[in-house]
Amino acid sequence: MRNIKLTIEYDGTSFNGWQIQGACTRTVQGEMEKALKRTFKKRIRLTGSGRTDSGAHALGQVAAFKTDSRMTPEEIRRALNAHLPADIVVLAAAEVPAGFHPRFDVRGKTYRYLILNRETGCAQQRNFCLHFPYRLNMRALRQEARQLIGRKDFRGFMAADPRQRERINAKDTVRTIRRVTVQKKGDLISIDLEGNGFLYKMVRNIVGTLLAVGAGRLPGGTVRQVLQTRNRVMAGETAPAHGLCLVAVTY
Amino acid sequence: MRNIKLTIEYDGTSFNGWQIQGACTRTVQGEMEKALKRTFKKRIRLTGSGRTDSGAHALGQVAAFKTDSRMTPEEIRRALNAHLPADIVVLAAAEVPAGFHPRFDVRGKTYRYLILNRETGCAQQRNFCLHFPYRLNMRALRQEARQLIGRKDFRGFMAADPRQRERINAKDTVRTIRRVTVQKKGDLISIDLEGNGFLYKMVRNIVGTLLAVGAGRLPGGTVRQVLQTRNRVMAGETAPAHGLCLVAVTY
Repeated sequence: MRNIKLTIEYDGTSFNGWQIQGACTRTVQGEMEKALKRTFKKRIRLTGSGRTDSGAHALGQVAAFKTDSRMTPEEIRRALNAHLPADIVVLAAAEVPAGFHPRFDVRGKTYRYLILNRETGCAQQRNFCLHFPYRLNMRALRQEARQLIGRKDFRGFMAADPRQRERINAKDTVRTIRRVTVQKKGDLISIDLEGNGFLYKMVRNIVGTLLAVGAGRLPGGTVRQVLQTRNRVMAGETAPAHGLCLVAVTY
Repeated sequence: MRNIKLTIEYDGTSFNGWQIQGACTRTVQGEMEKALKRTFKKRIRLTGSGRTDSGAHALGQVAAFKTDSRMTPEEIRRALNAHLPADIVVLAAAEVPAGFHPRFDVRGKTYRYLILNRETGCAQQRNFCLHFPYRLNMRALRQEARQLIGRKDFRGFMAADPRQRERINAKDTVRTIRRVTVQKKGDLISIDLEGNGFLYKMVRNIVGTLLAVGAGRLPGGTVRQVLQTRNRVMAGETAPAHGLCLVAVTY
């Protein structure tokens, strides 16, 4: 069997996230598997690099599937795009070694969170950025963001989902954030986070905390405290999913 | 009566254009007038700087209405935004002299047309740019675009709408294009047109012609010929509305 790796862009607005959840719920994985079925005339399971939340987007999600078809990767890409709805596009297809696993082999992921920081919202990009109308101290926000860099236990930024918690022991919540970039162009702020992996809702909890510190609702040093105490309660609210985009997955 | 000028952004995807067309058709003007009615508790007529096509967008449409309310422009802006659907945002409201007319007083308009020039489409910006997968000679396209600048009779770029044609004599089809800017950033091409006014579907017919010349389907010099002969038949196809955005109206 050949192993085919796909790079996928999607507008997550009308999806209940990546992961398939049954016939009645529209998910990216579900739509992808429908397109695979139409292309190859049989049921094929697609494995993603990881889930994305309901409403979150991707510019470079990675997934892979096995096939014994003789189609070239380029033919596969075109066939899938012909069968996919307009809010999913396969940007690239490539044949990879049989042992490649899109989730286990991840070396890094880059997420971007977009914030429109002005009083008035916007119409055209409303599904791709958080409208945050409060004044932000960018210096405080940036200083807080720097505290995230390094190999740390991010348990305090993990979603307080009891089902998830039970399965996870302390060691599993250690991640390395290699890069945090906060950029402001006019009213638009982008926060890029690059790391070897991210816990459930970790990016959204981090962004919510950075915004709370920037807006003066939480004191400077909160990130450091959350990291030290590993206590979710000290962190800010979870930022909404629609500002979040999975930009790239590296192997 | 006070005269209130509004600057309006909209995502035109789910609208049948600007102009109101009766109760069953969703238009920007119709939604705006609903929000005005909810705000002022009476029917208020809103006059725009001009129509935009079904599916076309605006970052700076201008419109005005009369009221005897004592609300400040800022209060009006906030109240309207509270009553508007998410795909329309009033960016600014200002009181203007009683004689100001949003259509008759226009000095200039700027339109932007976005083109994604690569084989694969995109998911996230699919409603805001034309996916054009064919190879473009940017040099030829730019040279053609330069021929548009100046005071010329643009009748040949006007839509062949017989009802419109009857009402218009030759003199009425003379317009001045002050600036044409063609920019390419990666796969994304933006064509900005600034002029004292534009005929029905003129921007889309111009863009369709520039793309046809850039792709080698029409010969270089087509723009000049269409201007000289004033013959719509010589020009390229009308480019789709969803790539078009009314960026600004000046007075």
